[in-house]
Amino acid sequence: MNRKVAVILSGCGVYDGAEIHESVITLLRLDQRGAHVQCFAPDMQQLHVVDHYSGDEMNETRNVLVESARIARGEIKDVKELHVDQFDALILPGGFGVAKNLSDFAIGGANCSVQTDVLSAIQAFAKAGKPVGMMCIAGALAAKIYGAGVACTIGNDHETATTLSQMGATHHECAVSDIVEDTPRKLVTTPAYMLAQSISEAASGINKLVDRVLELTHSA
Amino acid sequence: MNRKVAVILSGCGVYDGAEIHESVITLLRLDQRGAHVQCFAPDMQQLHVVDHYSGDEMNETRNVLVESARIARGEIKDVKELHVDQFDALILPGGFGVAKNLSDFAIGGANCSVQTDVLSAIQAFAKAGKPVGMMCIAGALAAKIYGAGVACTIGNDHETATTLSQMGATHHECAVSDIVEDTPRKLVTTPAYMLAQSISEAASGINKLVDRVLELTHSA
Repeated sequence: MNRKVAVILSGCGVYDGAEIHESVITLLRLDQRGAHVQCFAPDMQQLHVVDHYSGDEMNETRNVLVESARIARGEIKDVKELHVDQFDALILPGGFGVAKNLSDFAIGGANCSVQTDVLSAIQAFAKAGKPVGMMCIAGALAAKIYGAGVACTIGNDHETATTLSQMGATHHECAVSDIVEDTPRKLVTTPAYMLAQSISEAASGINKLVDRVLELTHSA
Repeated sequence: MNRKVAVILSGCGVYDGAEIHESVITLLRLDQRGAHVQCFAPDMQQLHVVDHYSGDEMNETRNVLVESARIARGEIKDVKELHVDQFDALILPGGFGVAKNLSDFAIGGANCSVQTDVLSAIQAFAKAGKPVGMMCIAGALAAKIYGAGVACTIGNDHETATTLSQMGATHHECAVSDIVEDTPRKLVTTPAYMLAQSISEAASGINKLVDRVLELTHSA
């Protein structure tokens, strides 16, 4: 049976939006596994715009939904339209957009808050007992969704892991090719570009995450 | 032996730049096959900027090199720095950016011209007898590089194929999962999103193209 999977994007580009490789690898694996995918993003201004060639901030404003639409080839909806009853699972690729647009983790750290509509959407999957996959820095949101004790990974970065612990998460070190699963909560995380030195390294863990999230849609 | 492959991008987004899925699938397959990849793009303004959510043109200017850097995670160079002697092969993903930024095919059709530095770069590979892969609408540039009689494909779109014939190319209809090879010229083309109805369909032909381009680096 084809599963329906929602993917929440956070812009288009690792330094101010969704990590493009992680997003595309996710979409590719889901499609190869026969899942029906719908992308979503919040209709809001990005925190800022980064010139990915120079690394400098640009004097521009861009919209998260509009830029995310580049990755989705226009097939994307406002995250306000994400209704949990229409999907079997949810996946969040990483990129600084998760920490800058979907939340203010990049600024607030352990005291961060998650954008209202994104928070509601992910919490609805958690409450419904439907599997969620979070890759790269997206794992930092786990404690804000699932509360204290949630098991997750962002790889092995000590400072970030410490922040996650302060938020109540139980951080597990994890290789780039592996996943961490919180089985009772049906949350799957993988380090992706928090650790990956190459696109195929990132793909190794992302493919495992996607496969496991799809498997979890079949468990009660 | 690890091959060195140059990839020329044309922005970041199917409607005004490089097709993101095609670009990432190319980078992934090359890396999985052990190739060393360097991305390039021309340092110039895009023809225009398209809102990929609404489809409307935006009142903005963006730079092809700067936007392409999003796909390359910052690891990209000006195409003026592409020296054929440093690489074994060249690949061009598609997207309207090829027809709007790397050339004016979208406006000029059969009378189009290719951006000077991009033209020089690709011609250098042709002259050196090094393999080149072009996917999607990038196949439209084949006749401008290789001259009359070059065999290539953009899928089965009759109008575009007719234009290619007017330019001197010998167009071959091709399934999305297949490639067309001009063996004497070492040019490999595949329809990708000119035909693909899904990202995994696009990947099927792109992976075949990448694999064949790498094989051709071993032929005399």
